[in-house]
Amino acid sequence: MNKPKIVIAGAGYGGLITTVKLQKLIGTEEASITLINKHDYHYQTTWLHENAAGTRHHDQTRIAIKDVIDPRKVNFVQDTVTKIDPEAKKVTMENGQISYDYLVIGLGFEPANFGIEGLLDHAYNIRSINSSRLIREHIEHNFAMYNNESEKKEERLNIVIGGGGFTGIEFAGELAERIPELCKEYDIDRDKVRVTVIEAGPSVMMGFDPQLVEYALNSLESRGIEFQTNAFLKEVSADSIVYEKAEEKHTIKTNTTVWAAGVQGSSVLEKSGFNVKRNKVMVTEDLRDPDHDDIFIVGDCAAVMNEETGKPYPPTAQIATQMGFNCAQNLKALIRKESNTQKFVPDLKGTLASLGGGDAMGTVMGKKLYGKPADVMKKASDNRYLYQLGGVGLVLKKGKFNIFS
Amino acid sequence: MNKPKIVIAGAGYGGLITTVKLQKLIGTEEASITLINKHDYHYQTTWLHENAAGTRHHDQTRIAIKDVIDPRKVNFVQDTVTKIDPEAKKVTMENGQISYDYLVIGLGFEPANFGIEGLLDHAYNIRSINSSRLIREHIEHNFAMYNNESEKKEERLNIVIGGGGFTGIEFAGELAERIPELCKEYDIDRDKVRVTVIEAGPSVMMGFDPQLVEYALNSLESRGIEFQTNAFLKEVSADSIVYEKAEEKHTIKTNTTVWAAGVQGSSVLEKSGFNVKRNKVMVTEDLRDPDHDDIFIVGDCAAVMNEETGKPYPPTAQIATQMGFNCAQNLKALIRKESNTQKFVPDLKGTLASLGGGDAMGTVMGKKLYGKPADVMKKASDNRYLYQLGGVGLVLKKGKFNIFS
Repeated sequence: MNKPKIVIAGAGYGGLITTVKLQKLIGTEEASITLINKHDYHYQTTWLHENAAGTRHHDQTRIAIKDVIDPRKVNFVQDTVTKIDPEAKKVTMENGQISYDYLVIGLGFEPANFGIEGLLDHAYNIRSINSSRLIREHIEHNFAMYNNESEKKEERLNIVIGGGGFTGIEFAGELAERIPELCKEYDIDRDKVRVTVIEAGPSVMMGFDPQLVEYALNSLESRGIEFQTNAFLKEVSADSIVYEKAEEKHTIKTNTTVWAAGVQGSSVLEKSGFNVKRNKVMVTEDLRDPDHDDIFIVGDCAAVMNEETGKPYPPTAQIATQMGFNCAQNLKALIRKESNTQKFVPDLKGTLASLGGGDAMGTVMGKKLYGKPADVMKKASDNRYLYQLGGVGLVLKKGKFNIFS
Repeated sequence: MNKPKIVIAGAGYGGLITTVKLQKLIGTEEASITLINKHDYHYQTTWLHENAAGTRHHDQTRIAIKDVIDPRKVNFVQDTVTKIDPEAKKVTMENGQISYDYLVIGLGFEPANFGIEGLLDHAYNIRSINSSRLIREHIEHNFAMYNNESEKKEERLNIVIGGGGFTGIEFAGELAERIPELCKEYDIDRDKVRVTVIEAGPSVMMGFDPQLVEYALNSLESRGIEFQTNAFLKEVSADSIVYEKAEEKHTIKTNTTVWAAGVQGSSVLEKSGFNVKRNKVMVTEDLRDPDHDDIFIVGDCAAVMNEETGKPYPPTAQIATQMGFNCAQNLKALIRKESNTQKFVPDLKGTLASLGGGDAMGTVMGKKLYGKPADVMKKASDNRYLYQLGGVGLVLKKGKFNIFS
């Protein structure tokens, strides 16, 4: 048997959709498919802020890989990829090595530190199931400590969010819902708790329509979230942060800084000698590494230029998922030597941000949506992804149905 | 109006039963009654180990004081008693002062440190709602941290219980139930988690029938609890403990040491010049301070000699509650100048220890009980207390009905 070996590294949006689609498109006699992932589950990165705030249990956010792959068609290896050798066509993991004929890299993102002092050591990240449930626990632990100390420490009740982009705003919205519950749980006055979003730009949610941004701000401020714009995070320590605004430095005492600003691709790419910028490879139009036509790159490790704007598309779940579909089709074409590969063309349906508590805002098909209709659409799009991944059964098991509250 | 002023300091078992009984026994024209307590709630100290383990929510363990006192008959002051001046007949609180004609001291217990290095700084105590939910949070936080560190720290998963007496054993039993849930919640192998009870005596549960002790040990060991007897806790630090056994020192790496051994009465008594031993006053037979016949002392601040054994009765909820009934009767007698006060005679109905997961053991009316019957009796006695405090309504609201599981 000399059938081609396809290895998919990473079971995020891009890698897992590639796998699930590929197992339908090709037969076992055509190729062997191996999926490598650090955990035995896939998680929805776009839901993690809810796990971090504590408004949704992380088990709702993760999906057992065995529930969506067909074990007769896909080998699953639970291990962490540490290096790729494109010349030898090998992937090295913590506990082994595997060779490939075609490789799909979907190794996701890492926080970027922008040279901010103490950020990597002291800030928390909404990055994985592990890191997100730690944020939930960390906040609860600080609230639990508060009434056990005779000298009250405000840093236990202050939460700072670094970055007023998509994740920062969505996280703030969930915290606004969660904090009154936490205050009740730990006998703390709501007025003592402060959540501050520190944003370097002149506004939060840059790139969104100003009316939508205004709507989001009103929604969050009315629920007690504070904002500092044109404010630059300078230092993060275990119990405070320093930001600079209008050339003045300000300190906030806090044990909880959540970094929700810049991310970059997996550092495995740079370590493996790929030609990267912020750990992303500018891929070919069919999502391949320009230097190795047996390597596809999907999701946050891939940069795809938006020809209209002259800037790369932002790294979203929507695009990663669409990359997975494209990549599976192209792998099938290559294996069958059928035809040329297809160019990846993103189909941007819109962007919706949830604001917590059933509120949301965004644009769908060029139309602005606010409040309930936006929230319903947002949840529908989350459910649609589950449908694509695992059919109706998965939607029923992990879907979001709290749209009537 | 010159009616006598009764002040009750502390709303634990003794103080609150005194108050609730007194408000039924005497009319508003006969005396003014003031209850002082640090919190606006009473809690059941004997249930706190369940809150600490996380098997029962702390709201089930606490009762709002306003739900059991009659505001037309009792003034409630939420404040912390710092000192008593028996000569001036005044009680000083953090935020005020109050004078009394009769005082009931029910200020509860504090952990005793027995000179163990680091104990007060690093060990946790099952002492209050605040301290118990902190233990729950602290354990959860450590479990959440575990998978976020590349170098795994066993001290995050090791739990040491100092003392194999009543509280230590009951806490171990609840942990045995809770740990599999925690392991599932944080993706940790059960085998990696160790719970060790360190007991200085030759056996745990000293004073219990050896057959009952054997039963308890079997129940707990079968669920993964480890025991070290004849073992002396020597040092507690933030990430380890040292104990000595057979003249050898042993170290256990742990971030979580729960001290469940010795307690003493409130330090307010010693600070106020009372004649104390381990912060307890050896009270008269009608529960008064020998030096001040206008001061009653109930609960853990009072020592009452058991004439049969020649040793003081152990500080239990059962005895504290009975003291409350006796104290209320005696206060009524004094105010009405009716008759002599009644001698306090404990009516020991038995002792039952829960072992978690519906298991229990103990002695009731001289009869040994194990397993289900013991568990049912234990929960019935918990419910009986609620009935005494607040009638059927309170039993329905806060009672333990999980006896059919």
